[in-house]
Amino acid sequence: MTAAPPETGPRETGRIEAFSDGVFAVAITLLVLDIHVPTGPLAGHSTHLAADLLAQWPTYAAFLTSFLTVLIVWINHHRIFGLIQRSDDRFMLLNGALLLAVTLFPFATSLAASYYGQPDATIAALVYSGTSLFLASCFNMLWKYASTNERLLRVDYDRQVAIGITHSYRFGPHVYFVAFLLGFVSVPICLGMCALLALFFTIPPRKHAVCATTGIR
Amino acid sequence: MTAAPPETGPRETGRIEAFSDGVFAVAITLLVLDIHVPTGPLAGHSTHLAADLLAQWPTYAAFLTSFLTVLIVWINHHRIFGLIQRSDDRFMLLNGALLLAVTLFPFATSLAASYYGQPDATIAALVYSGTSLFLASCFNMLWKYASTNERLLRVDYDRQVAIGITHSYRFGPHVYFVAFLLGFVSVPICLGMCALLALFFTIPPRKHAVCATTGIR
Amino acid sequence: MTAAPPETGPRETGRIEAFSDGVFAVAITLLVLDIHVPTGPLAGHSTHLAADLLAQWPTYAAFLTSFLTVLIVWINHHRIFGLIQRSDDRFMLLNGALLLAVTLFPFATSLAASYYGQPDATIAALVYSGTSLFLASCFNMLWKYASTNERLLRVDYDRQVAIGITHSYRFGPHVYFVAFLLGFVSVPICLGMCALLALFFTIPPRKHAVCATTGIR
Amino acid sequence: MTAAPPETGPRETGRIEAFSDGVFAVAITLLVLDIHVPTGPLAGHSTHLAADLLAQWPTYAAFLTSFLTVLIVWINHHRIFGLIQRSDDRFMLLNGALLLAVTLFPFATSLAASYYGQPDATIAALVYSGTSLFLASCFNMLWKYASTNERLLRVDYDRQVAIGITHSYRFGPHVYFVAFLLGFVSVPICLGMCALLALFFTIPPRKHAVCATTGIR
Repeated sequence: MTAAPPETGPRETGRIEAFSDGVFAVAITLLVLDIHVPTGPLAGHSTHLAADLLAQWPTYAAFLTSFLTVLIVWINHHRIFGLIQRSDDRFMLLNGALLLAVTLFPFATSLAASYYGQPDATIAALVYSGTSLFLASCFNMLWKYASTNERLLRVDYDRQVAIGITHSYRFGPHVYFVAFLLGFVSVPICLGMCALLALFFTIPPRKHAVCATTGIR
Repeated sequence: MTAAPPETGPRETGRIEAFSDGVFAVAITLLVLDIHVPTGPLAGHSTHLAADLLAQWPTYAAFLTSFLTVLIVWINHHRIFGLIQRSDDRFMLLNGALLLAVTLFPFATSLAASYYGQPDATIAALVYSGTSLFLASCFNMLWKYASTNERLLRVDYDRQVAIGITHSYRFGPHVYFVAFLLGFVSVPICLGMCALLALFFTIPPRKHAVCATTGIR
Repeated sequence: MTAAPPETGPRETGRIEAFSDGVFAVAITLLVLDIHVPTGPLAGHSTHLAADLLAQWPTYAAFLTSFLTVLIVWINHHRIFGLIQRSDDRFMLLNGALLLAVTLFPFATSLAASYYGQPDATIAALVYSGTSLFLASCFNMLWKYASTNERLLRVDYDRQVAIGITHSYRFGPHVYFVAFLLGFVSVPICLGMCALLALFFTIPPRKHAVCATTGIR
Repeated sequence: MTAAPPETGPRETGRIEAFSDGVFAVAITLLVLDIHVPTGPLAGHSTHLAADLLAQWPTYAAFLTSFLTVLIVWINHHRIFGLIQRSDDRFMLLNGALLLAVTLFPFATSLAASYYGQPDATIAALVYSGTSLFLASCFNMLWKYASTNERLLRVDYDRQVAIGITHSYRFGPHVYFVAFLLGFVSVPICLGMCALLALFFTIPPRKHAVCATTGIR
């Protein structure tokens, strides 16, 4: 079912963005399905709802980390598509791999939260940090494919912005790989690093650092 | 993963709106998953479906309140984006916080409906009104950030409309904070106030009141 | 949270359509969650999957009826928005009521399918046909509000198309009301009528009939 | 509820694409709900999470196959809409049938994964390959309807691209029909063929083959 040369024109990436936005939006909202209502009242007698809710804190932490991670990838997806004009089959498949990673987050989040503090937490932490690593790698591959030799970029794209993006994203997969390896040592450190990375990536980049690196503006 | 200066141009907010619309649409539709089909027929014998359905009235009330609350926030999100042209990193994060509040509604709604009339209803009511307060606060912060010093507004934005929005939204967080505090006193009053606020906000504003305040037109 | 006079301009209804499309798309896809995988294999021994799947036929019938009903309302929503240019607060709330009806379909469908052939099937059929009646009524009110005195229509809207829409949709609520009343008499007739109506509405209108009525073209 | 002649103009297919994108996005993301977190930790004692996760391999294989299948149909849906300008009632219904097939995938996937290796796996494999066959057939009918006599195509559509699409998609339903028939013989071969077809269709077409067939460029 894959024929025809890639289409061109300004309309090209609009629907890829629309479909991707849909997947991001559904995945980020499905995360909440993992926050369960404690089942106390079904029994009908007095419960300890406050304690039950507090005991779920790994679920909230995992929810917030995943929400932030997916949100930041969406923000950056939005950002690179501002520089991209064209599309081709390979780009669509790389974008599909990115969306695959995004859709896996509700599962990985639920797994990490369910097993935190349990004997098998190491495996759950490896799956979670591995999913984050997969997502960061897909994102990097997508940008690398689009930007190498300006393959799919707009004619009038801002070179400084493109260089800044390349610099910023270069370390993403490496730090998530470190988090993944730390999962063999300590579950809290592994998952804590994933949470800190999500927080860290929300900090707007230091403009001067980029300037210093590129030497321009 | 956050680099590059904010992009500009007329296209800037289109995808933020598309992604936000997606999250709003998914969250508002997921609310219905909390309305359960009574499990009577699984047992195979005669059931009391009418009575079972009526006994679920807190679920319907919570569903309607949350549907209306999310719908109104969407309408207002739509309204302020009609005045906004640009975007930046901080604005995207504030919008992300708003979307976080929206995605929490299916959980908060389910919690409030499940525990209504139960011993621990107070906690559930506090979580529900607290989520509403968080949503109203995020919305206010988003608008305040965009409108202060006309930071992200269109060049040709309608000042009267902007002033009207600022006046209307100023009290949102305060009234939800009152509802939250009332949760310590009475669950029905707290949740009833949330429902009434959702209904109240659907009433179109009195145009004259805005005129009187601003003294123009 | 409702201030500011309604905005105008060609952009006005774009986001209402986008949000509505999102709700329609999520609701129509959530319908499938009601088709359960028979739980036989969990027990581990030989099952009667073919028989179990066939025994679920009310679920498939309800799924198809609801899918078709929501699809047709979406097609018509799409059609009337082709004639509408402006929006105001009341129109947004009417559209919100329509979306509320759409989001209720996964619940009503599940209820009708679960209780079909059970002692309490009458109640379930009344809820299902009542939800369909509510949806058809919301749709009619939305179109009536937009089209009365050409309130929100495009300047260059096609009068013949508008008259044809008004004629076609006039009977929707009435026939669903008949289906609702029949629910008190016979569950199969009530639900069968809902299914037949969904099929009937997929038939493109007889152009000549419209011509005969309006006397033009 | 179906009146009025089909609208025309450049805006015609935009909302069909938006709604379709929504259904594709929701369906492809709902697939992940079938990957369950092993319930070990609920019991509180040491579990075999790694073994439990590995034992779920049919679920992952089914998830990946369905994700790829739906993604490829979306890519091709995107591709043919690049050539289509107009729409009519019948086209909308054919597109609706395609979306129906897409929404069935979460169910068919769950069924195939749950029953793999069980006594009734044959039935599950027939349902899965049958759903794939239905999807491929709907896609072909949609394209055939739009392209026959250039019924709904753009005035300036690329004939070579259209011919290439027709050639590529012609065999889709046939190969899925073979997979369906193989389901009566062997479940692994049937489902393996579905997986291989999904992988095969991700390979960009051989441009030269198309050239050889059409004799141009």
